[in-house]
Amino acid sequence: MASWSYTYHSGVYPSRKASLLSPDLNVANKGDVMQSLIKLYHIESRQPSLGDNTGDLDRLKKVLCSSLQGQNPVVPFQRVAPVAKAFRQSGFKGYAVVIHYPNGPQLVDFLAQAPETLVGLALDLGTTHIEASLVDLLSGKTLARGTVENGQLEFGTDILARIHFAATKVGRQTGLDLLHERVIASIHALALELTRRIRRKPGQIMALCVSGNTTMAHFFLKQNPHHLCREPYIPVVNRPDPFSASELGLDLHPAAIVIVMPSIGSYFGGDLISGIIASGLDQQEETCMLIDVGTNAEVVVGNRDWLIACAGAAGPALEGGVARMGMRAGPGAIEHCTIYPDSGKVEYQTIGGASARGICGSGVIDLVAGLYLARIIDIRGKFRANQPQAAGRLLEQQDGLAYVVVPSEETDLGEPILLSQVDIDALMRSKAAMYSILATITNQVGVSFHDLHRIYVAGAFGKHISPRQAIILGMLPDLPLEVYTPLGNSSLAGAALMLIDDEARKRCTDVVAKVTYLELNVNQEFMLRFSGSRIIPHTDHTLFPSVPFYGES
Amino acid sequence: MASWSYTYHSGVYPSRKASLLSPDLNVANKGDVMQSLIKLYHIESRQPSLGDNTGDLDRLKKVLCSSLQGQNPVVPFQRVAPVAKAFRQSGFKGYAVVIHYPNGPQLVDFLAQAPETLVGLALDLGTTHIEASLVDLLSGKTLARGTVENGQLEFGTDILARIHFAATKVGRQTGLDLLHERVIASIHALALELTRRIRRKPGQIMALCVSGNTTMAHFFLKQNPHHLCREPYIPVVNRPDPFSASELGLDLHPAAIVIVMPSIGSYFGGDLISGIIASGLDQQEETCMLIDVGTNAEVVVGNRDWLIACAGAAGPALEGGVARMGMRAGPGAIEHCTIYPDSGKVEYQTIGGASARGICGSGVIDLVAGLYLARIIDIRGKFRANQPQAAGRLLEQQDGLAYVVVPSEETDLGEPILLSQVDIDALMRSKAAMYSILATITNQVGVSFHDLHRIYVAGAFGKHISPRQAIILGMLPDLPLEVYTPLGNSSLAGAALMLIDDEARKRCTDVVAKVTYLELNVNQEFMLRFSGSRIIPHTDHTLFPSVPFYGES
Repeated sequence: MASWSYTYHSGVYPSRKASLLSPDLNVANKGDVMQSLIKLYHIESRQPSLGDNTGDLDRLKKVLCSSLQGQNPVVPFQRVAPVAKAFRQSGFKGYAVVIHYPNGPQLVDFLAQAPETLVGLALDLGTTHIEASLVDLLSGKTLARGTVENGQLEFGTDILARIHFAATKVGRQTGLDLLHERVIASIHALALELTRRIRRKPGQIMALCVSGNTTMAHFFLKQNPHHLCREPYIPVVNRPDPFSASELGLDLHPAAIVIVMPSIGSYFGGDLISGIIASGLDQQEETCMLIDVGTNAEVVVGNRDWLIACAGAAGPALEGGVARMGMRAGPGAIEHCTIYPDSGKVEYQTIGGASARGICGSGVIDLVAGLYLARIIDIRGKFRANQPQAAGRLLEQQDGLAYVVVPSEETDLGEPILLSQVDIDALMRSKAAMYSILATITNQVGVSFHDLHRIYVAGAFGKHISPRQAIILGMLPDLPLEVYTPLGNSSLAGAALMLIDDEARKRCTDVVAKVTYLELNVNQEFMLRFSGSRIIPHTDHTLFPSVPFYGES
Repeated sequence: MASWSYTYHSGVYPSRKASLLSPDLNVANKGDVMQSLIKLYHIESRQPSLGDNTGDLDRLKKVLCSSLQGQNPVVPFQRVAPVAKAFRQSGFKGYAVVIHYPNGPQLVDFLAQAPETLVGLALDLGTTHIEASLVDLLSGKTLARGTVENGQLEFGTDILARIHFAATKVGRQTGLDLLHERVIASIHALALELTRRIRRKPGQIMALCVSGNTTMAHFFLKQNPHHLCREPYIPVVNRPDPFSASELGLDLHPAAIVIVMPSIGSYFGGDLISGIIASGLDQQEETCMLIDVGTNAEVVVGNRDWLIACAGAAGPALEGGVARMGMRAGPGAIEHCTIYPDSGKVEYQTIGGASARGICGSGVIDLVAGLYLARIIDIRGKFRANQPQAAGRLLEQQDGLAYVVVPSEETDLGEPILLSQVDIDALMRSKAAMYSILATITNQVGVSFHDLHRIYVAGAFGKHISPRQAIILGMLPDLPLEVYTPLGNSSLAGAALMLIDDEARKRCTDVVAKVTYLELNVNQEFMLRFSGSRIIPHTDHTLFPSVPFYGES
């Protein structure tokens, strides 16, 4: 079984080769991939004289130009005065700071001494949380890492609510103005905290790469999200050009480059492109799959020759959004749970070991799989009230039965933690949707599940779920467990690679050009498969030979 | 004799060929040179659909890219929302507005209908006045033209005073802040007035080209002018990269491109580069000369193969800045004057035909030449008090004699207009400096005056002076008068060409790379020649065969 606890927590991001060969390898070969978006060029110029009346900035650019293989660096207007001044004050020698934009180099700063680090900020712009890492653009090392709540939560917990809020007027501002302000404020808070930890200032951050779903990218860029959720679901922009931090009013270095991960469509965002980059899906000889599950399930299948992607509503059950006692993965959330099939005894484990406060997505999957194996629920996910293993744990409630996961005396809240029939029904729809998506996309490209060399599972879902339990439910295909590889926060990891790995930026462009997007909203096959998937593990139980089938009961 | 009244007053700028062949030709062949810095591209795109989820802006860029021969247009961040919105509102068809920057195309606007004109603003940023023309970037036509006083005058009438003022603190601002604010305010006022005349708004100006001396360019760009007037006289920047109007806070179209004419050094500004472009000096087979005279005399000699330039202090006499009754060329200034050699009778002509209020540079030259021919002054420029032609016109004053040009009863002021010995002495130094500069630069490149096919004389000096009178004084070489060609405001004309003629922009880059600058401050030859030039017409009077020499008197 793969190491499920793996995340990119270490000081150095894995090289792309390393990320393919072993998810545990976290020391990169510096010479291999650590080329910076921003480069320092050592400059030593002649002193100005009566016989050489070249302007200060022209003098610097002239010397620099030869280091840039004849490319003429552009100096953004606001940087003319500070760069020229620093060059003169340094005695016309030191280090030119050049940002390599796609359309050419920009000279943005001049330093008398070579700095030890050049700080970049990678951001995973999540709907609920914003996670960031500071990276050293010179060495590729991670300098700090942290998370803040997305300040937009006040205006809606889910994407759709925020899209609607964006269109409202709030005094003299629009909802979009406010959503934009909040996400920028959250980013500023995080940047301040992380730079403080390494005794730097946000003004020293020279590059930012933002990875998020398409809607979050729109809010960050202050673009109208109106059409994102309306057929035919067209973004304002999928591939924004890089720009300067000052253009967006970001409190970073005023000339810091801002890169927003490109998206493929409204339902296939930059976070997924990051996942492809971080997993190396686009470079593999053998066909692999990438799964990212939130309210939507986003799936990519492919290899170095082709990539196909789709997204479908998986329902919020997998995020812990529907179960009444559901919660997002966080302290006190039941993330794993075992029900002994013979005794019905329940053991559980919470995030951080805290008293149980609710159940997160992986916990719900474990629970429902356990209930099935203990035959407390049947193949349709309905409670079997007389099953002895459920004795004392089933309560009759207004809308049906509920299973007591944790009795009230063990919880933090003084109330029991329950899993109701309604909750299970929601999960059954989610698991059916999930499997149908995977089956449809593979079938569309003529690939069988057994052809998949690896299945990368991104994010909190990948980090917390047990693939075995998901297989029991028929949510994930019945493959050897080592095929399933958790990626951790690949949205963040991909963003960081964009900052420190030239090859990653090139790959990103190629990936966006290469991905074929399969629209499931109009897909007949998906609808048919969905019906067949509403049984545990599946109507065609031969698809899940490792899972006991209790259809005869 | 060439047409001395020629200026670029007509509706269309001469094509570059036309400017060489005939200064009177003012109708350009549109197909020949009228290529725009900004181009419109007709776009007609497929409508978005479920099967084509390309983002709005990506859709536009994709279609545009093929019109740009595969070049990928960059959309500046602030233009993403308005361009995408306009594209959608126009039903995904219309006209993309693309600015061609040196490092690639920028997509800055989208119009449902093809506009009749695309407005550009050409500016001559003079120390005392700012002159501008609005040009149509599509047809090359001039739409309006006007002048305002430079709002910086309050902080110093001359460049040196303003450079010193720039370093002062004025409350929380620096002098530089104020100088910058004033010149921007003056430009705004002029842009507002000119656009009003054609029923447009400044926000519709899509391009600005600014031409001025190096100090004025520094003030415009808010760059520290400190070193401009201190040996070794090094500008902060000679060749600023083009930038967007919004970066400088200009009230034009926010994405308007701002081009500042490059300079060669502190004493050789963008106004001279404009002069080279407007005159076509850089394209001629035969060697020509360009003279621009203000407080400094700036001179370029060359042809299509080489260009050499120098600048030297000519003294303010030629601008009317020293003569006590001196004034800049303007209403009431005596611009031409005849003294009948036999009778001593004086006839004069004022600008605008107004009552005489003072004497401008060309008037002073006419006067002193007339005084010499009437033998009222000798070859050293000293009054000959007993000369009968001066009868009744010489007054004894505290610091010597003064000549009554206009008696008090004919003036506006109730006082006579006088030309004093001190004034004449100043002019003598100026004319000596001028001739020495011309002799030195030609000698340095082994060219004789008689090798010069044409001598272009820029600005007000070229417009107003009579070359014949300047020759009599020994200020300009004794060449056939048709060699002398006035350019009018070539600083403005060059700026306009930069906006409407692709070739002009290319030439500008070539010119800046090609010009060799000759430093006269350390030139021994110049100092020697200066001494020999302080005689009318010259110590070696054989250099001026057409001028009577009264050295024996």
